[in-house]
Amino acid sequence: MSEFTGNHILTVNQFNRDAIEKVFDVAHTMQPYARRQKRTTVLDGAILGNLFFEPSTRTRVSFGTAFNLLGGEVRETTGMSSSALAKGESLYDTARVLSGYSDIIAMRHPAAGSVAEFAEGSRVPVINGGDGANEHPTQALLDLFTIKREVEYQGKGIDGLHIAMIGDLRYGRTVHSLSRLLCLYKNVRFTLVSPKELAMPQPIIEAIENAGHQLTVTEQLEGNLDVDICYQTRIQEERFPSQEEANRYRGKFRLNQSIYTRHFQSRTVIMHPLPRDSRAEANELDNDLNLNPNLAIFRQTDNGVLVRMALFALTLGVENLVTKYERDVIWHSNKSSD
Amino acid sequence: MSEFTGNHILTVNQFNRDAIEKVFDVAHTMQPYARRQKRTTVLDGAILGNLFFEPSTRTRVSFGTAFNLLGGEVRETTGMSSSALAKGESLYDTARVLSGYSDIIAMRHPAAGSVAEFAEGSRVPVINGGDGANEHPTQALLDLFTIKREVEYQGKGIDGLHIAMIGDLRYGRTVHSLSRLLCLYKNVRFTLVSPKELAMPQPIIEAIENAGHQLTVTEQLEGNLDVDICYQTRIQEERFPSQEEANRYRGKFRLNQSIYTRHFQSRTVIMHPLPRDSRAEANELDNDLNLNPNLAIFRQTDNGVLVRMALFALTLGVENLVTKYERDVIWHSNKSSD
Amino acid sequence: MSEFTGNHILTVNQFNRDAIEKVFDVAHTMQPYARRQKRTTVLDGAILGNLFFEPSTRTRVSFGTAFNLLGGEVRETTGMSSSALAKGESLYDTARVLSGYSDIIAMRHPAAGSVAEFAEGSRVPVINGGDGANEHPTQALLDLFTIKREVEYQGKGIDGLHIAMIGDLRYGRTVHSLSRLLCLYKNVRFTLVSPKELAMPQPIIEAIENAGHQLTVTEQLEGNLDVDICYQTRIQEERFPSQEEANRYRGKFRLNQSIYTRHFQSRTVIMHPLPRDSRAEANELDNDLNLNPNLAIFRQTDNGVLVRMALFALTLGVENLVTKYERDVIWHSNKSSD
Repeated sequence: MSEFTGNHILTVNQFNRDAIEKVFDVAHTMQPYARRQKRTTVLDGAILGNLFFEPSTRTRVSFGTAFNLLGGEVRETTGMSSSALAKGESLYDTARVLSGYSDIIAMRHPAAGSVAEFAEGSRVPVINGGDGANEHPTQALLDLFTIKREVEYQGKGIDGLHIAMIGDLRYGRTVHSLSRLLCLYKNVRFTLVSPKELAMPQPIIEAIENAGHQLTVTEQLEGNLDVDICYQTRIQEERFPSQEEANRYRGKFRLNQSIYTRHFQSRTVIMHPLPRDSRAEANELDNDLNLNPNLAIFRQTDNGVLVRMALFALTLGVENLVTKYERDVIWHSNKSSD
Repeated sequence: MSEFTGNHILTVNQFNRDAIEKVFDVAHTMQPYARRQKRTTVLDGAILGNLFFEPSTRTRVSFGTAFNLLGGEVRETTGMSSSALAKGESLYDTARVLSGYSDIIAMRHPAAGSVAEFAEGSRVPVINGGDGANEHPTQALLDLFTIKREVEYQGKGIDGLHIAMIGDLRYGRTVHSLSRLLCLYKNVRFTLVSPKELAMPQPIIEAIENAGHQLTVTEQLEGNLDVDICYQTRIQEERFPSQEEANRYRGKFRLNQSIYTRHFQSRTVIMHPLPRDSRAEANELDNDLNLNPNLAIFRQTDNGVLVRMALFALTLGVENLVTKYERDVIWHSNKSSD
Repeated sequence: MSEFTGNHILTVNQFNRDAIEKVFDVAHTMQPYARRQKRTTVLDGAILGNLFFEPSTRTRVSFGTAFNLLGGEVRETTGMSSSALAKGESLYDTARVLSGYSDIIAMRHPAAGSVAEFAEGSRVPVINGGDGANEHPTQALLDLFTIKREVEYQGKGIDGLHIAMIGDLRYGRTVHSLSRLLCLYKNVRFTLVSPKELAMPQPIIEAIENAGHQLTVTEQLEGNLDVDICYQTRIQEERFPSQEEANRYRGKFRLNQSIYTRHFQSRTVIMHPLPRDSRAEANELDNDLNLNPNLAIFRQTDNGVLVRMALFALTLGVENLVTKYERDVIWHSNKSSD
């Protein structure tokens, strides 16, 4: 058991560097189970309440799969309409009732703050799966876990790395949370590339500066950047007065193999929160990058399963019992890392 | 095996007092599993078809959780649109087909009588999870089970208790079914408090009188009532010609701590079928009652899991085998009764 | 392990006669598990990603149940709206991501060719659960498996049988795929009964002729037909300029007990892809046939579970290990064949 046991996971702000490294250590031990080299049933009989009041295929399925991989069962609810909330029930009541049906809850909801409000009524631990514009802590953790793995592969650590964040830094929830987590580390260099209208919010800028990190802000990619990580985002057309203007901006922040070669190093890792918009008018990360071995976007989603398995194991206090309830996989999986 | 094995659960009318007490005895034995003190796999390999043609988060998840807690798997269908019924398939055909995919079915449907019609085509037992204005027998059973537990805690039984039912007694399906079950017991006192327009239907009144119970009908709460159970309901605005009129009625049937103190005893248990409408214009059960230890509304939903586990175990004939397939829970749950 | 292990199931065209017979042999061995006489956990720990981008209760639940019956877990996604596809994600990306969350995928999608496109991005085997007007190979296999079982019961085989296909042979995907599979057998007699406007497409006609089969094309049922299998289809009103015209056509292609007696033999087996439209204006297969022991429509859907179990076992390479991980069923099921 650790300080995680029985507690909610609501925000990146609740983590210090030790806590993050604990999560990452446990996530690392989950790999043989996620790759189906071994099977564990440590959560035998436990039930995850997977509550997605806002639709999300990838996050929802990732939570469910992570719980199944530890041997637990999943009861799922998707969509608002199927909810008593529509009949005027308070989040507190919903939480009191639904927490009677499971041992841990993963929850997404469109309203900022709603998951924390729900957690107050819950009698079991709640993991925030995204509450509107507010927080999506498991995404931030899987992003940082991916960075750690990718740069370790190059013999480096998170301390001292250089990250470029590109595109919509204003509304992109993931770059905010990732930046906050990076503030727990040392000597990180940030290069923020975005149109002025979509610049990183001032509180995040201040947090980066207060952490003693080095910061460069620019409106477009220029010259050859010595960056370890290039974190690309979506530019959503609804942020602009017209589609024409949106398309003009998008054109400046696209990434493809030739732009990559011009502005980045052969070691630079490419990340993106996904989904990437592959329609011609968006195309923020061209498909010609699919052959680039540094494209880490699918390793990100694979890592998401490991991080969520770790959070479940820690929250339910079984992080040291996983191997004890291990057994062989009978069937043949072609499962491999990306 | 009992007389339940292999049979449908369609209506409260199919229960006599012995059958109810059998369900309650089994439900009581389910508590250590629901509280995660122990794990059982007695339904290993069994599949519940959880068919919710009308949305319902709490009832649907409660059925699914109850089945998981006995070691079974759940295959779920929600919503009408995803159903072949929309293409003109008869309920009989749907039942013949879907009953080939599971070992037992829990079903909710908006049309009265539809679950019984479905059951005729089913090759496995069907449990009615609510068929429109008609029946919701598992709710009635969990209500009565809650009453039994709450009054037993005070050293009493169901025979001889005094229950007040408040609000919409005309359209409130739960108060009808609960009243019918109470007619199987002796010397119950009913105090029915509702506007004339929402009075208890005559057939229920007659059933209460024929059972030899004592009955008081009134239009509003008056004086100090010596009741054991206060069963509050929702007043739905769609029942009234205008929202103003609805709000006027609602105002008369609200319950909060000060009204509770004025009209009830310190022992009076407060129940409600949930969800309670917490919006200001409704607020049938004020949040200030959350601190009242006699507020049993969340114990009701917890008890629902026990009752549904009992019905599954009885219907699949394993009520005496549950402990035989028991094992320890590995992980740490904070699960407690409400 | 067989040639199936690790491969996709996308189209009936990938099967030769040996492959089909392998599937049917394995499907046959699945019967005691589907009937709950025995339990197997050979897929313990495996996860099926059940992706239904187009709604379908029966096919979706049949896949999920088949996987559960082998001991695996199911993570489900239904509907387009809850998908990242709506945000411009390519099927390739969706497949790369979601295949990280499961060991095998069953997928339905409204667009022809989409499942094959998805399979290219998937890192695990994909089974086509229907891609629009294109293919639904598991339906064709379960239809042929049913034919084999029904005629074997009469001491015959697929070679040499006489099948009548009735109604909408133009848009009915199932009759196309079934015809293609029957082209792998010998001396089959086809009697195709449909309005000219809904005639069997020329490529299928040619395939039947090239296989050396005997073919009769007619516009309505006439005389007494010496057929072993009568495969009835739906006539969908949207195919016609007006509802009146649709109803006129439907009238000609209805089947009930008296038409059956007039045109068929007492041994003729009646099949239909389901759902059958039981509304008066359609009624392609009258309910008075429910008492006819040759009505095989519910045996078809039961057989679908066996065929899908076989495909999962073969694709995950455990077809010879199923009995090794067998155990007794604890609970009492009333499960029987139809």
